[in-house]
Order: sequence, then C-alpha cells, then structure tokens
Amino acid sequence: MLTPSALHQLQAIVGETRVKTDADSLKTWGVDWTKHFTPAASAIVFPATTEEVQAIVRLANVEKFALVPSGGRTGLSAGAVAASGEVVISFDRMNKVLEFHAADRLVRVQAGVVTEQLQQYADEQDLYYPVDFASAGSSQIGGNIGTNAGGIKVIRYGMTRNWVLGLTVVTGKGDILRLNKGMIKNATGYDLRHLFIGAEGTLGFVTEAEIKLERKPRNLKVMVLGTPDFASVMNILSTFQAQLDLTAFEFFSELAVQCVTASGDVARPFPEATPFYALLEFEALSEAMEEQAMALFEHCVEQGWVVNGVMSQNETQLQNLWRLREDISETIAKYTPYKNDISVLISRVPAFIADIDAIVTENYPDFDVVWFGHIGDGNLHLNILKPADLSKDEFFAKCQVVNKQVFETVQKYDGSISAEHGVGMTKKPYLGYSRSPEEIAYLKAIKQVFDPNNVVNPGKIFDLDA
Amino acid sequence: MLTPSALHQLQAIVGETRVKTDADSLKTWGVDWTKHFTPAASAIVFPATTEEVQAIVRLANVEKFALVPSGGRTGLSAGAVAASGEVVISFDRMNKVLEFHAADRLVRVQAGVVTEQLQQYADEQDLYYPVDFASAGSSQIGGNIGTNAGGIKVIRYGMTRNWVLGLTVVTGKGDILRLNKGMIKNATGYDLRHLFIGAEGTLGFVTEAEIKLERKPRNLKVMVLGTPDFASVMNILSTFQAQLDLTAFEFFSELAVQCVTASGDVARPFPEATPFYALLEFEALSEAMEEQAMALFEHCVEQGWVVNGVMSQNETQLQNLWRLREDISETIAKYTPYKNDISVLISRVPAFIADIDAIVTENYPDFDVVWFGHIGDGNLHLNILKPADLSKDEFFAKCQVVNKQVFETVQKYDGSISAEHGVGMTKKPYLGYSRSPEEIAYLKAIKQVFDPNNVVNPGKIFDLDA
Repeated sequence: MLTPSALHQLQAIVGETRVKTDADSLKTWGVDWTKHFTPAASAIVFPATTEEVQAIVRLANVEKFALVPSGGRTGLSAGAVAASGEVVISFDRMNKVLEFHAADRLVRVQAGVVTEQLQQYADEQDLYYPVDFASAGSSQIGGNIGTNAGGIKVIRYGMTRNWVLGLTVVTGKGDILRLNKGMIKNATGYDLRHLFIGAEGTLGFVTEAEIKLERKPRNLKVMVLGTPDFASVMNILSTFQAQLDLTAFEFFSELAVQCVTASGDVARPFPEATPFYALLEFEALSEAMEEQAMALFEHCVEQGWVVNGVMSQNETQLQNLWRLREDISETIAKYTPYKNDISVLISRVPAFIADIDAIVTENYPDFDVVWFGHIGDGNLHLNILKPADLSKDEFFAKCQVVNKQVFETVQKYDGSISAEHGVGMTKKPYLGYSRSPEEIAYLKAIKQVFDPNNVVNPGKIFDLDA
Repeated sequence: MLTPSALHQLQAIVGETRVKTDADSLKTWGVDWTKHFTPAASAIVFPATTEEVQAIVRLANVEKFALVPSGGRTGLSAGAVAASGEVVISFDRMNKVLEFHAADRLVRVQAGVVTEQLQQYADEQDLYYPVDFASAGSSQIGGNIGTNAGGIKVIRYGMTRNWVLGLTVVTGKGDILRLNKGMIKNATGYDLRHLFIGAEGTLGFVTEAEIKLERKPRNLKVMVLGTPDFASVMNILSTFQAQLDLTAFEFFSELAVQCVTASGDVARPFPEATPFYALLEFEALSEAMEEQAMALFEHCVEQGWVVNGVMSQNETQLQNLWRLREDISETIAKYTPYKNDISVLISRVPAFIADIDAIVTENYPDFDVVWFGHIGDGNLHLNILKPADLSKDEFFAKCQVVNKQVFETVQKYDGSISAEHGVGMTKKPYLGYSRSPEEIAYLKAIKQVFDPNNVVNPGKIFDLDA
C-alpha cells in the first residue's frame, strides 16, 4: 500500500492536482470493462511526459508500491484493473500527436491518444489508420499496443503490431528506451519493440509510439450473404479470397441478427433467415472488380452455399450492413453474456465449432449461444447468454465449468485462449492451455529482467513464483 | 574446443557420417559470404530433426562447447562464421516442406528449406512467398528468420517477420518451444516468436517455421526513370505512392548502371545517362491503373523530375529492367567494394545521403561510390569501390576509418547501422551507434535467460561481459 510519504512524492512529480484519491476517481480509473473484480486503487496519477512516468516508476521501485497502467479502460480481461491497492497511472493527459513525417507516412503519438483521434488525424493527412474495432472511440493507443489489439480489418491490415514502427517505453526498472525509432528496416539485435507489444504493461509502460499510416481504402463494398450451414461460410471465404483482396471477412449466427434487429434500428439484410451469415468487404478498384464480385456471388448461390445476399450500393448502405456485425456486442449485453475470445487455424474452425457446440449443448441445453467473429483470421467470439431465470452468480459459476472444457478443446486444436483481448487476470488461470510450462518459465524470467521488483502491473498474465 | 568424447557423442546423436571434420568441410561450412574472418570450426554436424538439434544443444551445455548455426551461408555480417573452434550445426538436411493448410494459406517448413524452394512451393499452390532478394537461390528460411531478411519487395510486403506465423525453436538451454503455432491472433503473453526473429541464432536455433503465403501478384509492371538529382527520386516516390500500391521502389546511381551494362548482357533502359535512376513496380489490376501510371510519369516529366523513362510491356522486358538493379552487387564485386547497409527514415534520406557523400568525398576524393538501395524503405546500400592501385588491406584499413564517420552520421539521423544484414561480427563494434547502453544491457540479460552457458552462437551481435 501507498505510504503518506510516497503519496507526497507522487504529488511532487506530477503536481498536487494530478494525483487523485477520492472514492469516485479510484472507482473510475481503477477498472476496465471487465466487471468481475472490485476496484481497490490507492491513487490515480496523471503524468504528462515520459520523464514523469519514469520518475513514478523509479519511486515505485524505491517505495515498493505496485503500478497499473490505465488507458481507455475498454479492456475485457482485467489487464488494467487495480484490485490490490495499486497506484494507477492514467495516460489521459498524454494525448498529443507529436510529429508527422509525410514521406514515411509516419506519425509519432503519445500513449494516451484515443484510437479514433488517430484515425481522424490520419484522415486529415489523406491517410488511414486501419486498426479498428467497436471501442475505437475510447480505447487509447497505449492500451492497443499493450494487448496488440486486432479488430475487424485484420485480414487485410494485420494486428496493431504491424503498424508500430517505434516505441518509447519506461521499463519496470525505470529505464527509458527508444525502440526501433520508426524504421522499417533495422537488423541490430533483438527487437524489444515486439516484446513490449502485447505485454499488457507487465514489462514497463509505453509512453510514445511511432505509427505507420496507410493510403485510404477506395470505393469499399460490403456484401452480406445468408448461408445454410457453417461449412458454406468457409467455402465463401476461400472462393472470394482467391480472387479479391478482402478488407474484412466476418461471420455471425441467426441469433445475433435477431438480437441486433430486435432493437428496431437495423433491418434484416434480406427476408430469409439463415443459420449463418458472412459479411465481406473489399475495395472495388475498378468496375471489373465489382463485376467479378457479383460473379463470385452467383457461383456461391449455384453451389448452394448462399441462400440470398446483398451488396452495398452507397456509403449509407455499407454502414447499415456493418451494423449487423458491429452492434452485436452492445445488443447482447442485456443478456449478460459469458464471452470467450478464442482462435484456431482457419482450416480447423469447422471441426472446432462443432466440438464447442456439442459441449455447450450437452452441458447446458437451455443456454443460448451467439457465435460471431473474425472468421478470416480464425478468431471466434463465443457468447453464452444468461437464461432469464438464472441469477448472475449461478450463471457465471456454470460458465466457469464449461470454460475448462472450451479451453481443453482450444488446446486440442493448438489454438489460443485469448485471440485479441489479452490475458490480464480473467484468463490467467488458463494460460497453460495455450503456452507450455517451458514457455511460461521464459515469460517469467523475461519479466524479471525488465521488472526485478515486480512493480509494473504485477499479477497480470501470470503470477511470479513466490 | 571439442573433446574426442564430445565428438563421439555428436556422432551418436546424428550418425557417424553426419559429422564432418575434414579440412574442406570445415572451410566450406565454417563461413558465410563475409570474407574478413578465417574459418576455424571444430566439426560440422548435420541433424535431421528438432530432437537431434535439441540433443546437440544439450550436449554442448554439458560438454561446454560452442555452436554456430549454418544455413545457406549467404550472410554478409559473419553471423554464421565459426572463427573460434565452434561446432557448426548445418540445416542442409532439414530441407522439407512438412504441411500445408490451404484455407490458412499456411505452410510449415523445416529451417533448411531454401528461399527459392519455398517460392516454388508457393507457386505450385497458386500462391506467393513475397520475401525475395538476390541470394534467394541459396539462402535458407532459418537464416532469413535469424536476420529478419528484407529484400526488394518490403515496401509492399514487409520483412520476413511479417510472414512468420509460428516457430519451433531449440533454446540455448535446450528446451523445445513451439511459438504461436501459425495463428494470426494470439494475445497470450509475450510473443517470443518475434524475439527469435532477427536474433541471429544467439538465443537458440529455429528448426521449423509456419509461413504465411499470399495471393500471386497480377500483371506486374516495372518502370525505370532517369532523374537529374536525388531530390527528384524522392518526389517520384511520393507522387506514385499516393496513387498506386507499389510492390517495389528502388534507386541506383549512374555508376551502378555503368557497372551493370559494362558486362554487355544488360542494355541501358534509354540513351540518356542521368545521375540517378528510380525503378518502381506495381500491379496493373486494370487498364485504368496502367493509364494512371502513365499520367503520373508525364506529371513527373513536366515537373522536371524525370529526364526519360520506360515501362515494361511484357515479362521479358520486366526481367531485363530488374537486372539493372539486381545485377549491381555481382558486377561491382570485382572492384572489392566496401559495403554498408544502413537505414534512416525516408524523409531524412536526402540530407543523410548529402552528409555521407561529403564525408567520402572529403576523406577519399579518389574513391568511387556506388549508391543503390530500397529507397521506399529508407534502406541504402553504400558501396565504396577499391581504386585499382590500392592493396585490399590498405583499402579496408582506410574504409574502417570512414566507417566511424558513417556510423556517427547514422546515429545523428536516428538510423540503423544494419538495415537487413544483421550485426554478426562485422557490425558488433558499432552496435552502440544504433542501440543505447541501456538497451544493450537488456539484450545481454535476455541472452542469459535463454542461453545461460553461452553456447549458441556466442560472440555474435555483442560480447557478454566477462
């Protein structure tokens, strides 16, 4: 816990008004979107510079208190939750775009820049930041880097990792490192930048990043296709991917469409209800490409893989079709879903889904399951809905049991127990299903290299051996 | 050095005929393309499986001998040279394609698969492996991963790193780790895969890799444009990049063209000799794109950035235009060039080149300099040619002096002293120009986590403190 002396020293570093200890602040900045843990932060500090972050980390090493990084607090694995009296470092004040190099399409930003703010900045330069997901309006770049955020455009543009050409970090020991400095090519020893990406703040804190931007996509078209079974979704993927550079390939089940359309804001794409839907997006760089897409659609219909489908004819239609996919999380929230974010090789998805469906159906025949996900990346979101007659605690307790079987299945298929949400605290007990004991031993040894006193985000991803 | 007992144990692991100690073999497998070091290997072993590699590494830990990995031996920084009595592990027998997942466009290969072999395998699946460079006919995937090889298509497809979705490695301690298992999305703690990519075998040895393939490029077109000055090269880059997705953007100087055309096999692209040339490549996915490229070309001529230029009309012309760039290394070899492989941000290239030119001109007015490189990635190859009247030793001694000034300039521009060739032994004394003392201390600490007895490729990248 934080001593009064340490608190004074924190105030000396960032200024008295930039350390908050009132109950409201502790509650607000002490958690992310995960609701399983009770916030119990000791203080929230709001540094403005890398040097202030360094001073805080050094103080933590001397005074032996723990630090939790806090960005947009949209995490889904409790990676940014302060549940054990930690001091929270909020990056809310480090929200500036620092530098832009046009010839490199490279922008240097502070860690607290919001994803949407970066997207807009790119747009103003007539460029594009392609990492996008539902929480882009709140999530911060530092948090995206900490979890190597993915989202809906990964099939074309890759994960956050692909866009990070440089990082400034403060390590757990309190060193400032400038990693890779924005270069595309740099073969001078181990690339520590990639070690920090996805480390969830357990090796140190990202304070600045050099981010590559891309040319804007042109004339995007979205198709939503209704399919009779899941195998057809896979056939549609391989058919279209062989001919077109897809910028997205998503899928969702009929129950997801029912949830989204029930709100009344979004219409069904076509009258027929089908068990599954594929949403695909591509750049129609020429009329020929649009015609090619229509020919592929017709081929899929002839093969019996598609029952009906639509293609957007303008930007409004495109946005409305996307809502069928993007509104799922929000509209199922009222059913208190138990969420899993898992991935396997694309070729293993059909067998994997069948196995998981069998587990859920056998154990909980009265549970509704909403499937959706980034199928073009092998990333599935499994959402088990709470039956109305079950209490929240009973429901989560039952889900914990099924969890083990889900993760055993993930392991059987050489998959990941967390595709894009990170490990944090919620997946920590299950890390061994995706990483071997030897690997985990190396992770812990690396943590000790960068953070020998275990002050930066301790107890996330794994617990160090006593 | 290797004891007779250790030699017998090596023979027991891989079979007697798979350990070579004759002088010819020691000389052949003891070096890469770097010629500054005298090979002095103790033995060459040829394992066939990951388990055999593990047994060798474990033996090295017990018997205290050092190991050097050996792939296609095309390295340019002595990363695979055995100059101190090491045992060389050759991956020549681990040359099999193991598995292919069509839906994932994913291939699993052994480390000894030759780059060109992988390119051909991809071609047979109607797919494409986009990492390409002059030594693709000899270099092995394991070596490419060890140095994070780049090459001529980085502007569109990125480095080797971008295509590695999984690695099987044997660490310096002798553990087998399967890292990331081919997944696109996997947020389960530190991504050790990326730590091994570019580590030059100093943390352990890559034995297998899961490699992502891409759709084949269609209707590639190459333009070669003659420019009056270097600033025009940069203007051409930004003009074309704003409109087209370039698959390559290279530059070279007039002296390079003179060397290549002197052989008589390759013709000048057009009659005019100009100080610099830009070579750009793009996919003409439609006739409109080809017209757009012509319009951009005309715009560049109007602006005075281009004196003359050509565009390939068929595959033969495309190959011939590429030879103007790809034959440079080979044709300047007879001038015993002193090579540097450096990178800076693209926006800093013009000032950087001017500084380097001034240094070379001032110190060595009689030295010829051939510039070429992957300008679209900020990667420059500086080649100083040996004057005929200077001995090789005198010449290299003089270059060592200029080296220091070149690297000071790299540091001034926040650049890299090795863009794509690695550090090995040749760049080891200069690592501090690209990485800070704090960073280097972390590199060494990480080395000790994976290789506490310093048996895998010791003395490469850095020397551990005594």
